[in-house]
Amino acid sequence: MIYLDSASSTYISNEVLKEMKPFLEDTHLWANPSSKHKCAELPKKAILNARTRIADLINSDSEEVIFTSGATESINLAIKGIITDYSDSHIITTQTEHKAVLESCKYLESVGVEVTYLGVDENGLISLNELKNSIQKNTVLISVQFANNEIGTIQDIESIGRVCKDSNIPFMCDATQAIGKLEVDVEELNIDLLCLSSHKINGPKGVGSLYKRTKIKINPLLHGGGQEGGLRAGTLNTAGIVGFGKACEIAKNNLEMNHQKLSKIQAEFETFIESNKKGEVIAKSVSRLPHISNIILNEEAETFMIRNKDKICVSTGSACNSSIETHSHVLEALHLKEKIKNCVRFSFENKSHLVSKLDLFI
Amino acid sequence: MIYLDSASSTYISNEVLKEMKPFLEDTHLWANPSSKHKCAELPKKAILNARTRIADLINSDSEEVIFTSGATESINLAIKGIITDYSDSHIITTQTEHKAVLESCKYLESVGVEVTYLGVDENGLISLNELKNSIQKNTVLISVQFANNEIGTIQDIESIGRVCKDSNIPFMCDATQAIGKLEVDVEELNIDLLCLSSHKINGPKGVGSLYKRTKIKINPLLHGGGQEGGLRAGTLNTAGIVGFGKACEIAKNNLEMNHQKLSKIQAEFETFIESNKKGEVIAKSVSRLPHISNIILNEEAETFMIRNKDKICVSTGSACNSSIETHSHVLEALHLKEKIKNCVRFSFENKSHLVSKLDLFI
Repeated sequence: MIYLDSASSTYISNEVLKEMKPFLEDTHLWANPSSKHKCAELPKKAILNARTRIADLINSDSEEVIFTSGATESINLAIKGIITDYSDSHIITTQTEHKAVLESCKYLESVGVEVTYLGVDENGLISLNELKNSIQKNTVLISVQFANNEIGTIQDIESIGRVCKDSNIPFMCDATQAIGKLEVDVEELNIDLLCLSSHKINGPKGVGSLYKRTKIKINPLLHGGGQEGGLRAGTLNTAGIVGFGKACEIAKNNLEMNHQKLSKIQAEFETFIESNKKGEVIAKSVSRLPHISNIILNEEAETFMIRNKDKICVSTGSACNSSIETHSHVLEALHLKEKIKNCVRFSFENKSHLVSKLDLFI
Repeated sequence: MIYLDSASSTYISNEVLKEMKPFLEDTHLWANPSSKHKCAELPKKAILNARTRIADLINSDSEEVIFTSGATESINLAIKGIITDYSDSHIITTQTEHKAVLESCKYLESVGVEVTYLGVDENGLISLNELKNSIQKNTVLISVQFANNEIGTIQDIESIGRVCKDSNIPFMCDATQAIGKLEVDVEELNIDLLCLSSHKINGPKGVGSLYKRTKIKINPLLHGGGQEGGLRAGTLNTAGIVGFGKACEIAKNNLEMNHQKLSKIQAEFETFIESNKKGEVIAKSVSRLPHISNIILNEEAETFMIRNKDKICVSTGSACNSSIETHSHVLEALHLKEKIKNCVRFSFENKSHLVSKLDLFI
């Protein structure tokens, strides 16, 4: 079985697991890290260390990192948390965001918030002019994904960040697919709120983080104990956080190598597709993530997947949408029309040795 | 170091860890359980199995179990999710609930919801008459903890459930400390929403669940992918959920034995305290959890804890409140006045071999 669905989830790397294990197994590290006694000291230290590693990856201060249960929670916290007046707030986002953004926005619309969903061109890119023209007096947030999870298109985050800074509007960026593959620097890019997930970068599931620039004020989504500076209640998941921290450290150290390896795999894969006339690469001409290739095959995706169900694991869209969508909202935004039915997302690990096997199934 | 803070968190049992490991280590079990391909089949099955185990513990249907990141999220989801009209809703709860309940209620008050906080007697028990008299036409939820996390007092859940049923008001119950120690049967007790946490019963941190009776309608707190029937978005944390499921199975199978062992330890501990005139047991005369003894010592808790900081790990209140409260809100509700300063919570594991060691530090 060839796993080509890394954009949905990744394995936990050995180094990550090694750091997590003491916090799962050891009889002296299980204490609640918020406790005041001696047994809580090491868990507390380990969490601080993880916080620093995450901050290092995105060039922030560790105090600006809020641990959550994953990117979906981070996104919900950022988008809903920034609203103070439901009847006089406006959010700008894009039609191709992850469902966590879109559904949070839809919910906010249902309680009175105005939302603009920017369209994209055939490559999935938004227009900077359209973004600028959409800004209103009551715009409280601009939320644009770093790079798309279905087609890999990388937005011009630097320019978007500059627009946000010039307009004095908080910039929220879902970088779930970008970290570990691209450099993500919240200072350089003027990002105010950044959402990350652990399990997309060879860390454990069930943990993620929200970077929140100190000057940005948000309300908590989960109320309770005073964890995470009062912004996210709930017992800290020590082992998960430690694993996420290690995954971020590895992602930082291996960024360039990882990008090179993935780019090579992607290039080989896309050359195979094109030279054998097996299909068409979506957004071929623009900057894309090196681990995602969305292909318009010559046959229907459904047919392809059924035929190869014992050979490869791939997706037609985000796993998160599997149960609710007929067609991917991302592909629909590209106006692919009939071709949508033929689209399959292939997403790679840097270990993938693909090309020799491709003619087995494509 | 003697760990007497099990009410804050517990170690992960070997059997639980054994079931989790394949989902952390195995190269074929990491897929996103919401994916449609073959690699997702085993994770999906494992989650279904965990769901059934949790349902078995509380006598519900597995379809009524929603996985969350822990009890705090479950509580927030239940309390906030049930409100449809902020300007005409009333909630009844108690002064001694966990902060996740109280802070969620405070938040709801800030947006227009009316909340009644029932007082308690010197043993931490609410009055059924007061509960009945507090019901209004617009009461949409009654939220009473199964058993208190600081003093162990068990409320008369059966009678409260009957009041709720007779009044046709949803009954939400935080059973975080009760499961594994007491029988919790949502059918018999007329509980409509039940909140559970994994790490209090020798499962991993970062996972919990909300039981929601099918007929009860709530809105999601985390929007996004359609996971958990649209009620809780976010990639399912397979390893955590599997561990939680196993912990629930063990809790069910060992319930009686666990209760007996803990009761014996508690009795020995309290006999030591009282016969040596070391302090006074709070709520001594009422039904309490077998793993929690809150003692009014003859000295200040602070002094006691500093003196014994290298010998035992105990708390003066909930770990969740450590950083924000001067005094426990639970103890304040008991009107202990000056004695509050002397209160220490001792909470046991069924493995604890305490009594021979007690004179070392108390």
